[in-house]
Amino acid sequence: MFAADATAEDRAGTDVLPAVQALSEQLGHKVVTSRPIREQHANITTYLPNEAPDAVVFAESVEDVQATLAVCRAYGLPVIPFGTGTSLEGHVNAPLGGVSLDLSRMNRILAVHGEDLDCVIEPGVTRKRLNEELRDQGLFFPIDPGADASLGGMVSTRASGTNAVRYGTMKDNVLALKVVLPNGDLITTSRRAKKSSAGYDLTHLFIGAEGTLGVITEITLRLQGIPEAITAGVCPFPSVGDACNSVIETIQSGIPVARIELLDEMQVRACNAYARLGLPETPHLFLEFHGTVAGAREQAERFAEIAAGHGAGTFTWAEKPEDRTRLWQARHDAYWSVLPLRPGAKAVATDVCVPLSRLAECVMETKRDIDETGLIAPIVGHVGDGNFHTTLMVDVTDPADMAKAKGFMTRMVERALAMDGTCTGEHGVGQGKMKYLAAEHGEATLEAMRTLKRAFDPQNIMNPGKIITV
Amino acid sequence: MFAADATAEDRAGTDVLPAVQALSEQLGHKVVTSRPIREQHANITTYLPNEAPDAVVFAESVEDVQATLAVCRAYGLPVIPFGTGTSLEGHVNAPLGGVSLDLSRMNRILAVHGEDLDCVIEPGVTRKRLNEELRDQGLFFPIDPGADASLGGMVSTRASGTNAVRYGTMKDNVLALKVVLPNGDLITTSRRAKKSSAGYDLTHLFIGAEGTLGVITEITLRLQGIPEAITAGVCPFPSVGDACNSVIETIQSGIPVARIELLDEMQVRACNAYARLGLPETPHLFLEFHGTVAGAREQAERFAEIAAGHGAGTFTWAEKPEDRTRLWQARHDAYWSVLPLRPGAKAVATDVCVPLSRLAECVMETKRDIDETGLIAPIVGHVGDGNFHTTLMVDVTDPADMAKAKGFMTRMVERALAMDGTCTGEHGVGQGKMKYLAAEHGEATLEAMRTLKRAFDPQNIMNPGKIITV
Repeated sequence: MFAADATAEDRAGTDVLPAVQALSEQLGHKVVTSRPIREQHANITTYLPNEAPDAVVFAESVEDVQATLAVCRAYGLPVIPFGTGTSLEGHVNAPLGGVSLDLSRMNRILAVHGEDLDCVIEPGVTRKRLNEELRDQGLFFPIDPGADASLGGMVSTRASGTNAVRYGTMKDNVLALKVVLPNGDLITTSRRAKKSSAGYDLTHLFIGAEGTLGVITEITLRLQGIPEAITAGVCPFPSVGDACNSVIETIQSGIPVARIELLDEMQVRACNAYARLGLPETPHLFLEFHGTVAGAREQAERFAEIAAGHGAGTFTWAEKPEDRTRLWQARHDAYWSVLPLRPGAKAVATDVCVPLSRLAECVMETKRDIDETGLIAPIVGHVGDGNFHTTLMVDVTDPADMAKAKGFMTRMVERALAMDGTCTGEHGVGQGKMKYLAAEHGEATLEAMRTLKRAFDPQNIMNPGKIITV
Repeated sequence: MFAADATAEDRAGTDVLPAVQALSEQLGHKVVTSRPIREQHANITTYLPNEAPDAVVFAESVEDVQATLAVCRAYGLPVIPFGTGTSLEGHVNAPLGGVSLDLSRMNRILAVHGEDLDCVIEPGVTRKRLNEELRDQGLFFPIDPGADASLGGMVSTRASGTNAVRYGTMKDNVLALKVVLPNGDLITTSRRAKKSSAGYDLTHLFIGAEGTLGVITEITLRLQGIPEAITAGVCPFPSVGDACNSVIETIQSGIPVARIELLDEMQVRACNAYARLGLPETPHLFLEFHGTVAGAREQAERFAEIAAGHGAGTFTWAEKPEDRTRLWQARHDAYWSVLPLRPGAKAVATDVCVPLSRLAECVMETKRDIDETGLIAPIVGHVGDGNFHTTLMVDVTDPADMAKAKGFMTRMVERALAMDGTCTGEHGVGQGKMKYLAAEHGEATLEAMRTLKRAFDPQNIMNPGKIITV
C-alpha cells in the first residue's frame, strides 16, 4: 500500500499503471484518468483534503462492477464506490489511491409496485428524480438529507434528514439490496415481503457500511402514499432552550409530526438574507404535519398549545404548496446561506445526536461553547430525533483557526457521548470521524467491526481508510 | 461432534462429562443435568423431535454467561441460549448436545427512560411483565407475538405479531444490545440516541440471529406512549378473498391501523367454541385503531367504508377494555382453540409472508390446497403485513399423515417464494426451515451468511445446526 498522499504519478512503476491498463482493456471508454475528473471524485466538501483516485470507472451494469472488482482484486487496488459526492466526511477520498467506481450511470428505476408501496431501483438514482417519477402515482420516498444524493450513497451512509422523525432513516426504509461482494459474488439480501425472519439480516449489514463491504447494485425501497393533507409553518421562540423543550414535549405526546427543524437566531438571520424569508431573528422551529385534513389540523393545534406553553410567538402557516416549497428550500439551503457570514471561509458541518431528553441541554451547552470560543457557527437540527448540526465557518488556511474549530468539534462529540449520544447521527464516519469510534463504542465492539470487515474483504480493497482500520 | 440423536449417556467417555463437571465447579447449583429439566429446555412445540441438551445452566449475570462460554470453548461444547422455549422451529433443540443457557433469571428491568421512550432490560424479561411494569407510566412495548416470550428470544427470532402492521417488528424496535460474543468479549452495539451512522450496524446483526452468533445479555427497546384512544372490533366477510382485499385497500390508503388480523371460518368456529365469542361462522377481520379520540374514530370509519365495498357484514365494536382484552385473548388462544378440532393430533404452525398485493391470491390458493389435500388447518394472519399462518392438525405417529402435512407445508413455502415472499415472516428458521433457505436466498447469499457465522463463531459452538450449516 501507498502513503496517504501519494499520487498516481508517485506510484508509477508500481502495480497501479498496469491495473489501470487492465481496466481500460476490459471497460474501454468507461475508464477515465484525467486529473479534473479524478479530483471531482474525491472529497469536495468540508475541510478534509481532496485525495484523488488513480482512475474513475463509470459503471453501467453489474457486469462492469464485477469486472472492476476482478481487476482490483488481482492488483490489490482499492475500490471506492461513488454516487454524487455529496457526503461530508471524506467518504469518497482515495487516501491509498485506487479506483473510484462511479455508479451514477446505473440510474434506472426498474419497477414501481404501487400496490405494495415499494420500488426497485439502481443505486445511481437520486432522491429528487425518484420523487419526480413517483409523484404521478401518488407516492413518495420520504428520506430527505437535503442534498440531491444518490440512493446508493444514502443507503451507504445510513442517511436521514428532515422527515426521519416520522418516517425513520434509511435503515427503516430499505427492504432489500443486491450487492457485489469483494469476492465478486452477487447476493440478494432479502425479498419484497414486508417482513421476514429467514436468516441473518444482510440488508442492514450494508446500510451504513460506506462501501467498505461491497458495492450496492440494486435497492428495493419502501414508499409512502402522498398524504391527503400537508400543513407546514414556522414558529418563533425566545430561546433555543424553549424551542427544544417544545420539541421534547411534542414527541413525548406522540404527535406524529412529519418535520420539526430547529434554526437558531444566527441561522434564521442567514436564511433571511439568502432566501428573503423575513422572519423575526430569534430561534425558530420549521414544522410540517401529514395526515387526513382533520388529522393534520389536530396535530398542528396540539403542537401550538405545547409551543405556547414554552413562550412561542405567533405560528405562521405556509398554506400554499409553493410557500411550503420555498420554506423547505430555505431550510435545505442552510449550508449555502451561511457562506456569506464569513467570506473566504469554508463551511464545516458537524453532526451529533443525543437521546431526546438531553437535547435542550446539549444544544444550549454547544451554543455557550460557540460563544465562548468565538466561532461563527449557526445551529440547525432534525431535533425531533435529538439530532443537530453546527455549520462552522473556518479559515482552513489559518492553523490557529483550524485548531480552534477542531477543539470545538471534539468537545461537541465528547458532550454528545457523555449524554449517551453518538458522534454522527446521519453523516457517517468516513475519514473524519474514525477517531471518535473507540470512545463511542469501546475496543471490543470495534474489534467486532473489524471481524466483519476482514471476513468480507480480506484483501482490504473496499474503500480502505474509512470507518475502521483493520 | 456427535450424531444428532446421541444422548449424554451415549457420549459418556467423551469430553461432555468433564465439560459438565467443569461447569459445575464454576457455577455450582446453577448447573442442572436432570432429564426432565434438560427435556424442558429442548423443543416442546410442533412436530420436531425433542433433542435435549446435556446440561442446563441458569445464568444470573453476564459473568455467568462468560464463564459458561469459556468452558464450552475449551471443550468444544455447543451453547444454546434459552428464554421461555416458546419458539416454533426447534430453535432450542440440542441436536449435537451441549449446554442450554437459560437466561430467564436475568430478568431485571434496568432502566425506564420515559422521556426518551426507551427502556433497558435483561433478556429474560417477558413481554407481558414488561408491559405490566410500564403501564403506570403510560407506556407500552408494542411487539406481541402471542406467547409470553422473553424479549431476548423475541430479538433472536426477529419476532413480530399483531401490532407489527403499525409499530414494526423487533428489527424496528431495538435501539441497542449488549452481547457476549463466542470469544467471550462483551460488546455494546449502539447507544441510546434514536439514530446513528457510527459504523457497522451490529444491532441488526444479532436481531434474528437465533443465538448462533452470540448471547444477548442486555436490550435497549423503543417504547410507545399508550394511545389516548383505542378502538377495537370485528367484521365478518363473505370470503377470505373479500377480507384480504379489504386489507390490501386499507393499507394502500395509508390508514395507520394498529391491528388487522384474519381468521378464516374454521378458525372462527374454533374460537367460538373455545372462547364463546358467538360470531357468525364466516371469515372475519379483528381490528384495532390507535390515536386521538377523533383520529381513531376517523380511521375506523374509513376502514368501514372500504370493508363495505367488499361485502362486509356489520362491524361489531368492543367498546369496553375488558371486551377488547377478551377479543385479543381469543385471537392469541387460536393455537389452543384448534386442538379440540382433532383430538390427539399435534398443532403445527406454518408461517409465510408475501408482498401485500399477492396476499388474497396466496391465502386463497392455500385454502384450496387445504381443501384438496383434506387437512384440518385453520388460517390466521397478521394480514396487514402480508403474513399468515395455518395451524395444521397432524397425527405425528402416522407416517402417511405426516407425509401429507409435509407436502402441504412445502407447497405453502414454494407458493410464497414464487410470489416474492419468504418462508418465514416471524417464526424464524431454527431447524425446521433450514431446507428452504437456498431456494429463498440463493447459494451466494447463503455463503455470505456462512462467512458471517464463521467469522464470529469459528468453533461453531453457538447453537449449531440452526439457520445454516457451516
